[in-house]
Amino acid sequence: MAETERSGRPTLAVVGATGTVGSVMLQILSQHADIWGEIRLIASPRSAGRKLVVRGEQAEVVALTEAAFDGVDVAMFDVPDEVAARWAPLAAAKGAVVVDNSGAFRLDPDVPLVVPEVNAHAVRTRPRGIVANPGCTTLSMIVALGALHAEFGLRELTVSSYQAVSGAGRDGVDTLRRQLSLVAGTQLGTSPGDVRRAVGDGTGPFPEPVALNVVPWAGSPRADGWSSEEMNVRDESRKILGLPHLPVAVTCVRVPVITTHSATVHARFEGEVTVGKAREILATAPGVVLFDDPAAGEYPTPADVVGTDPTWVGRVRRALDDPTALELFVCGDNLRKGAALNTTQIAEMVAPEFA
Amino acid sequence: MAETERSGRPTLAVVGATGTVGSVMLQILSQHADIWGEIRLIASPRSAGRKLVVRGEQAEVVALTEAAFDGVDVAMFDVPDEVAARWAPLAAAKGAVVVDNSGAFRLDPDVPLVVPEVNAHAVRTRPRGIVANPGCTTLSMIVALGALHAEFGLRELTVSSYQAVSGAGRDGVDTLRRQLSLVAGTQLGTSPGDVRRAVGDGTGPFPEPVALNVVPWAGSPRADGWSSEEMNVRDESRKILGLPHLPVAVTCVRVPVITTHSATVHARFEGEVTVGKAREILATAPGVVLFDDPAAGEYPTPADVVGTDPTWVGRVRRALDDPTALELFVCGDNLRKGAALNTTQIAEMVAPEFA
Ligand SMILES: NC(=O)c1ccc[n+]([C@@H]2O[C@H](COP(=O)([O-])OP(=O)(O)OC[C@H]3O[C@@H](n4cnc5c(N)ncnc54)[C@H](OP(=O)(O)O)[C@@H]3O)[C@@H](O)[C@H]2O)c1
Ligand SMILES: NC(=O)c1ccc[n+]([C@@H]2O[C@H](COP(=O)([O-])OP(=O)(O)OC[C@H]3O[C@@H](n4cnc5c(N)ncnc54)[C@H](OP(=O)(O)O)[C@@H]3O)[C@@H](O)[C@H]2O)c1
Repeated sequence: MAETERSGRPTLAVVGATGTVGSVMLQILSQHADIWGEIRLIASPRSAGRKLVVRGEQAEVVALTEAAFDGVDVAMFDVPDEVAARWAPLAAAKGAVVVDNSGAFRLDPDVPLVVPEVNAHAVRTRPRGIVANPGCTTLSMIVALGALHAEFGLRELTVSSYQAVSGAGRDGVDTLRRQLSLVAGTQLGTSPGDVRRAVGDGTGPFPEPVALNVVPWAGSPRADGWSSEEMNVRDESRKILGLPHLPVAVTCVRVPVITTHSATVHARFEGEVTVGKAREILATAPGVVLFDDPAAGEYPTPADVVGTDPTWVGRVRRALDDPTALELFVCGDNLRKGAALNTTQIAEMVAPEFA
Repeated sequence: MAETERSGRPTLAVVGATGTVGSVMLQILSQHADIWGEIRLIASPRSAGRKLVVRGEQAEVVALTEAAFDGVDVAMFDVPDEVAARWAPLAAAKGAVVVDNSGAFRLDPDVPLVVPEVNAHAVRTRPRGIVANPGCTTLSMIVALGALHAEFGLRELTVSSYQAVSGAGRDGVDTLRRQLSLVAGTQLGTSPGDVRRAVGDGTGPFPEPVALNVVPWAGSPRADGWSSEEMNVRDESRKILGLPHLPVAVTCVRVPVITTHSATVHARFEGEVTVGKAREILATAPGVVLFDDPAAGEYPTPADVVGTDPTWVGRVRRALDDPTALELFVCGDNLRKGAALNTTQIAEMVAPEFA
């Protein structure tokens, strides 16, 4: 498209364009309807001058400076927490609406935490000029839960995660790859201790071997034995659903999957639920795919879901001993809906304000 | 030990001595105190004449016939369900106490389902002369839950499993190995669909690829969307704990781990619980190892637990919104406590009746 045809459209900045999430963001911007004027690519001074492709055109990466936000209407941030904490307020002060995908602002009461399918309205009230994107574990399930909550009224949530290693960035993926090549030469974990012997202690972002293993830990220690990842799923779910006192019990577990987080969900509602009504809601909810016919081999797995946009839901059952509770198995690509896609959706919601 | 020294001791038969569980059983019999007279090894006619080692001595496998039970006091069965269904009653009719590890008798009201640390007393009442061993998924958690139930009184259970492929026998292990060698040549699941492309559809006992994937299905379809494995965990837990109306919600998920089942448990009790008291119980319960100091990197993972006897428990937390509920992460070797070990323990409890 010629530059002139784009004049009068909002200017978008992608901060962290060279990163894991940033690259998926550039792909998504190339696939979505082209609503933007200039798209400015920003990263650290290390990357300044690099050329990346977006919308089929080359664009040069510029270093993160205050001047980089001149004329920017919307800025999507995909950089480490401390970089976002420092630069997002500066971008906002220069008049940009910031959509931040780091953990720096998610629980700030003056920053809305937005999932367009669930709480789109929240994007309008942003006292700091910043909108936050939830973490990938919350995002892997919250669209489906939001739809069920709208109908049934959520009363309690028990969640166990099966989290992919790319949730811990490029280092997470490299670590699993390295460990898999180490165990490939062994008898593959049939005799006691041989995964441990082949892999040694945990490496990279994981405290224990993750190949041929599952690790019941993600994030850093919080009070009373909880992990930061578990507390985040709880706090973010409450904030997005607007249920500040919702009982939420979470256990986060890392599994040897590259991309796509899964979770089992035991959700209790205000009154009696039926599987028929739940399936009807999930089958029609925007952003949700119902894939649920076990007898025909239909239930979501990461191998099927990776690279797709929606939240996939299967194994929908009513608790046998509680007519108010549902069991679900959900999967979501942690790099798309879990990160780049949701951020882009928020930016696209804000864009018309600058038309 | 000389044959004469063993005279007067009970005769043990191991039916299915050549199988996956049978071989672990022979190892365990070689490690435990030697309380048995003759140990007779039984398998299909295909294996008759094969020599296996038990207690450091060679023993010849005999074919499964009625005559094979002549003089047998205790018979441990580790054979497919239909073989056990036919032959266990015949062995019992000949006077042997049968300890069966198949699924054929677990829910028979005239067959006790025994976990020695939890309901040892039940072994005495066996109208059919048969004692059943629970399934490996139930056994991976029930010793820890039994100890907590004895103190606090269990009122509700929500369980999500992370099940190893050896729970589906040798075929399960071979399938994961084959799939891992197929994905090793690819970019390992970073781009959409490449696990699926490398592995194809599910093979062996798994309906979907299990390498670099998780599969929310185990067993065969039951009513209302449940799997047989999920119903078994529910029914077996109720029977072992003596709580026929206990609300139990289970989701069973297969993960790419060779041996050792894990589970997250959300357990609600009759009254308020404390983490301090729960830890005290778990630290002293027979058959349980408490391994729980996340800040020091201590929580159980299959890589640590494989090859060991106890149920390992970590991540002990009190639910933040419910002072009556605990969260746990448990691991147990599905071939040891989950199968061969528990069967052997039951046989050893029965042995003194024949002294
Ligand atoms: N991976 C996920 O599943 C996921 C999901 C949700 C949210 N997130 C969050 O998204 C953010 C980015 O994650 P990622 O996995 O994409 O990380 P990544 O692959 O390490 O990329 C980091 C990006 O930040 C840039 N950057 C780093 N330090 C900078 C600095 N001082 N100034 C300017 N730019 C700087 C990097 O630029 P250079 O290339 O120039 O160094 C790069 O573009 C993090 O906050 C992460 O927590 C990640
Ligand atoms: N794998 C586990 O984690 C696990 C856990 C709990 C319970 N179990 C149960 O334990 C039992 C054995 O499982 P497994 O994994 O050890 O199976 P496996 O490796 O296939 O071994 C089967 C055993 O049964 C024998 N057998 C088969 N058909 C027979 C027949 N018609 N007559 C006599 N013997 C026969 C086989 O003898 P040959 O070698 O002569 O064929 C072999 O010893 C099954 O009921 C299973 O459900 C398994």
